[in-house]
Amino acid sequence: MIDADILILAERLADAAGAAVRPYFRQPFDIETKGDLSPVTAADRAAETAMRAIIEAERPQDGIIGEEFGRVREDARYVWVFDPIDGTRAFITGRPLFGTLIALLDDGKPVLGVIDQPIIGDRWVGAEGRPTLLNGLPVRTRACASLAEARVGTTSPQAFGEAPFAAFERLRPHVCDVIYGGDCYNYGVLAAGHLDLVVESGLQLYDFAALVPVIEGAGGRMVDWQGRPLDRRSDGSVVAAGDAELIPAALKLLNG
Amino acid sequence: MIDADILILAERLADAAGAAVRPYFRQPFDIETKGDLSPVTAADRAAETAMRAIIEAERPQDGIIGEEFGRVREDARYVWVFDPIDGTRAFITGRPLFGTLIALLDDGKPVLGVIDQPIIGDRWVGAEGRPTLLNGLPVRTRACASLAEARVGTTSPQAFGEAPFAAFERLRPHVCDVIYGGDCYNYGVLAAGHLDLVVESGLQLYDFAALVPVIEGAGGRMVDWQGRPLDRRSDGSVVAAGDAELIPAALKLLNG
Repeated sequence: MIDADILILAERLADAAGAAVRPYFRQPFDIETKGDLSPVTAADRAAETAMRAIIEAERPQDGIIGEEFGRVREDARYVWVFDPIDGTRAFITGRPLFGTLIALLDDGKPVLGVIDQPIIGDRWVGAEGRPTLLNGLPVRTRACASLAEARVGTTSPQAFGEAPFAAFERLRPHVCDVIYGGDCYNYGVLAAGHLDLVVESGLQLYDFAALVPVIEGAGGRMVDWQGRPLDRRSDGSVVAAGDAELIPAALKLLNG
Repeated sequence: MIDADILILAERLADAAGAAVRPYFRQPFDIETKGDLSPVTAADRAAETAMRAIIEAERPQDGIIGEEFGRVREDARYVWVFDPIDGTRAFITGRPLFGTLIALLDDGKPVLGVIDQPIIGDRWVGAEGRPTLLNGLPVRTRACASLAEARVGTTSPQAFGEAPFAAFERLRPHVCDVIYGGDCYNYGVLAAGHLDLVVESGLQLYDFAALVPVIEGAGGRMVDWQGRPLDRRSDGSVVAAGDAELIPAALKLLNG
C-alpha cells in the first residue's frame, strides 16, 4: 500500500501544477501573428517546472520523466511521470476538460496516479492498495459485461494511426455508443462509473501511467491491446474497462 | 434591440432549467437492469417542464417548441425554443460540457439565444443588437481569415450523415486542426475567441436556434451549408465562423 505521505506529496504536486496552469487558460492568443510562446506551451512549462522543483527538493533520489523537460535519474526505483497538460487541444480551445497527469512508477510499474482538472476542480487519486478517490470520495466503476451495452470514449479518430483506427472501426459497430473528445477526463468518468470502455493508441508513458492506478483502484482494468498490464515499456495502445469482462471481447475485435 | 425584460426572462428560464438538471447529473444508472426513466430523460423532462411553466405563466401568447414536449402556438410571432440538454452523450457519461439551449424566434428568426452549462456555471447570452456575454462579460470571436490556421470543432463523425461526413472529410485536410466532442459548448468557445469554425449537420431547430444570436452578437457568422442565414425552416446543416471570411472557403470545400 502506498504511504500516506506519498499521497499527500502527489496532491501537492497537483496543487502546484494547477496554480501554474490556471492563469494561462482562455488567455487570448493571436493565431495570426503568433508570439514566441503559446499560452498552452507556457502553461505546460510552468506546471512541469513547479512539480519538478518539489521532487528535487523533497525526494532528490527519485527519477523524473516529464513531457516538457525530459528525464533525470530514470533508473531510480521510484520515478515520477508528469504530463502537465493532457488534452492540449482542449486547453487551446477553452474547454475545461484537459488535465494534469501525475504518476509514480515503482520499478517501472505505475503504483500511484492523479488526474487533476484544475479549472473546474475535479481530482482523481488512485494508488495501489487504496480505493480511488474523486474529490476525496471513493468511486467505483460500474458493471457492464456486454459490449453491446458499453459506452465507449475515445479522444479523436485522428489520434489513432491508420491500422489502429481500422481496428477501432472494427470494434465500433459492436458497442452501444461512442463519445469523442475527453482526453484523460474519459478515464476519470470511467473510474466513476459513467463510461464503460476507453480505447486509444499512440499514447506516451506520461499520457497513460497516471491512469492505471485510477482505473484499477476503482475496480476497473487497464491493459494494452495485447491484454498485458501497462508499464513503462508499453507501446501506448490502451484499453480501459470499468468491467474487466469487456476486455477479451474488445481485444478480439481490435486484433481482427 | 431585444428588451431587457426579455433578457431577464431568458436568464430565469436558464436558472430554472439548471436547478432541474443538476440533481440528475452523475447519478448512478444501472445500464444492465435499466429503470423506467434514465437520469438524462428525467433531467430533460424536468428542465423543459420548468421552462414551459414560466412561459405559460408570464407570456401565454408566445409559442413554445421543445425537444421533449413538442409545439404549442407555433404560429405566434414570438416562439421560444428549448433544448433542455444538448449533449445527451456528454450528460450520460458525466462530462460537464452539455448545455441547456434557449432561443427566442421573432417571426421564425432567432433573435435571442442562451447556452447554459449548469454544472460548471458557464452561461452565454446573445441577443440582437447587444454584445454577447459570457458570465456577464462581453466576448468576441477572434480574427482568422485563413482555413489553414483555423481550429475546427465538431461533435462526432457519426453525427453527420454519409454525404455530409464525406463533405466534412473534404474540408478537414485544409484546416489547422479538428477537435471532437463538445456539442453546444463548441459554439460558446468560438464566440469567446478560442475556436474558429464549427461544422455540423443533422441538427434540429432546438439544437441550433440559440447558437445563432450568441455567435453573431460576438462578431461571428453562422449559416447553413448553402450560406443562407438560419431560421426555423433551415435544414440543420450549420457552419459557425468566428471570422466571416472563413465561410466562403469552407462552403466551397463542403460542397465539393
